[in-house]
Amino acid sequence: MSMIETPYLLFLGDAPDQLAAKVAIGIKDWRPENAVGQFRMEGCKADVGLTDMTLVEAREAGAKTLVIGVANRGGVISPEWKKVLVMALEEGFDLASGLHNLLRDEPDLVAVAEATGRKLHDVRVPEVDYPIANGKKRRGKRCLAVGTDCSVGKMYTALCMDDEMRKRGMKSTFRATGQTGILITGDGVPLDAVIADFMAGSVEWLTPDNDDDHWDHIEGQGSLFHVSYSGVTMALIHGGQPDALVLAHEPTREHMRGLPEYQQPSLPDLRDMALALARVANPACQVIGVSVNTQHMGEDEAKAYLAAIEAEMNLPATDPFRFGAGKLVDALAAV
Amino acid sequence: MSMIETPYLLFLGDAPDQLAAKVAIGIKDWRPENAVGQFRMEGCKADVGLTDMTLVEAREAGAKTLVIGVANRGGVISPEWKKVLVMALEEGFDLASGLHNLLRDEPDLVAVAEATGRKLHDVRVPEVDYPIANGKKRRGKRCLAVGTDCSVGKMYTALCMDDEMRKRGMKSTFRATGQTGILITGDGVPLDAVIADFMAGSVEWLTPDNDDDHWDHIEGQGSLFHVSYSGVTMALIHGGQPDALVLAHEPTREHMRGLPEYQQPSLPDLRDMALALARVANPACQVIGVSVNTQHMGEDEAKAYLAAIEAEMNLPATDPFRFGAGKLVDALAAV
Repeated sequence: MSMIETPYLLFLGDAPDQLAAKVAIGIKDWRPENAVGQFRMEGCKADVGLTDMTLVEAREAGAKTLVIGVANRGGVISPEWKKVLVMALEEGFDLASGLHNLLRDEPDLVAVAEATGRKLHDVRVPEVDYPIANGKKRRGKRCLAVGTDCSVGKMYTALCMDDEMRKRGMKSTFRATGQTGILITGDGVPLDAVIADFMAGSVEWLTPDNDDDHWDHIEGQGSLFHVSYSGVTMALIHGGQPDALVLAHEPTREHMRGLPEYQQPSLPDLRDMALALARVANPACQVIGVSVNTQHMGEDEAKAYLAAIEAEMNLPATDPFRFGAGKLVDALAAV
Repeated sequence: MSMIETPYLLFLGDAPDQLAAKVAIGIKDWRPENAVGQFRMEGCKADVGLTDMTLVEAREAGAKTLVIGVANRGGVISPEWKKVLVMALEEGFDLASGLHNLLRDEPDLVAVAEATGRKLHDVRVPEVDYPIANGKKRRGKRCLAVGTDCSVGKMYTALCMDDEMRKRGMKSTFRATGQTGILITGDGVPLDAVIADFMAGSVEWLTPDNDDDHWDHIEGQGSLFHVSYSGVTMALIHGGQPDALVLAHEPTREHMRGLPEYQQPSLPDLRDMALALARVANPACQVIGVSVNTQHMGEDEAKAYLAAIEAEMNLPATDPFRFGAGKLVDALAAV
């Protein structure tokens, strides 16, 4: 059922450092079963810890799609990359990419893909005609992380909770709404590229009727308090009609991401605003916990901070990536 | 500076009734100086009260663009219409349309437009690469109507207030964000067709720096409480960074438009939600009045209702189309 055929060979190219391979790391961390190996070019400074493979070796190991797991420099697909991508198509791989510059805009890749019958997946571009949202109540349950800012750990929160639920044998699906999430799971909605009128409908489409005890963990985007992207967040809240909200926060930001004149809201302000809006679509919605991204804090500092948040908010608080998502899943199970 | 060259000849086609000519009526009501006449086909049941003209007569009267001022039946541009549209291109008219099915998707129109050097304006489709919103404070003032529901009179509220301000010699511009508004004024942003990430940026682009005593009247869209379109409304609130909000309401609705399971919010609920969100982008934002669409009420009933709203909300309330926008402009002038 996946939009992108798995398993993958992860293309790390000539990544200048480990950070540039963020997408490949995400796949390795969250869906290791989806990746048979990594492909590194000369000078590559990233290593996600998978077996280095040639294209032929990866095909023999069963890989179906070469996923570009690395950011490119200057928004250009270099001739060195191009050589590998063309060879991969010739070897029988589909290609998948979340790059800003699209595979489909490269005439040579398009020509070779057509000649070989392979697919080019640009996950930044919607490939579905989404409906207008109808707001009808759907079966099953949905959880959404809403942030005090962009890029505070909403995707990792959803992935951690999904992982913990599956380990417990609970029914759970991560629902990707961004490029990295889509490449990790092979499917999803590239919400920031959807036409305005269809945003909420695309989220309804992504999170359909399901078993009563099944949870969708919808990947959050933007923030209600981030003026550039708040409309996207709103569509997630109303299209996703969440039963549970998790408040996501990164405590060391000096201002809103990309907006030096704007400060992050407090967690109580986020709670009140998000809950009031969510209850328009689902009057039973509850805020069930707080997810704090403590990556810039020492362990003692992080634990003290989480304890203080629990006392202030009267909600379980954790850094799910660092300390596990158990508290949040316990709270979900009680909904 | 207009995207669409004025003045217009208004094409009413074979409109089955007056309602079908909504766009033409809007142009006639709000920018009569933009229309030299109307073009009606045999069997047309609409009449906006302009002189009936042939294409040649309209060209001689100075018309530059044939505007499709009527909804088509079944989403198809009929052969009868096509004949007129092709002749209009041949006569030297540009064409402008807000229809769902696009002029640019009609091969014959495209071919004739290319051969004659004329333009096809599909105002449903953005023609600008809008920026990501930067949230920076802009000079000048902005007013936005936010509704308890979709289609409650937000565009008419903005047009009425703009009209009243211009009559008083105040600096004012109506900023269109929908198809009808764009055709009325010849310019604007078709917000519901903008890509999610660029919605708020397109509203910033539409309402740039201006004189300190100049007001933009931004055409509202959707509703914060309408789950299908709330993301678009949010982008208007954060991209427009309004100094003043007007609450728009239609009191006779039985449920939210198109959503039988959803009820309209109360005016206090709308006020509190919209104001809290607007103050993220503009802490000085105020709610300055209430605009009620009383078209389904008798005059006495309407006046009594408005008086009750004024008492309940402690804000000026009017139906600006029926009773004038004076009260709302008085309140704006005091901001």
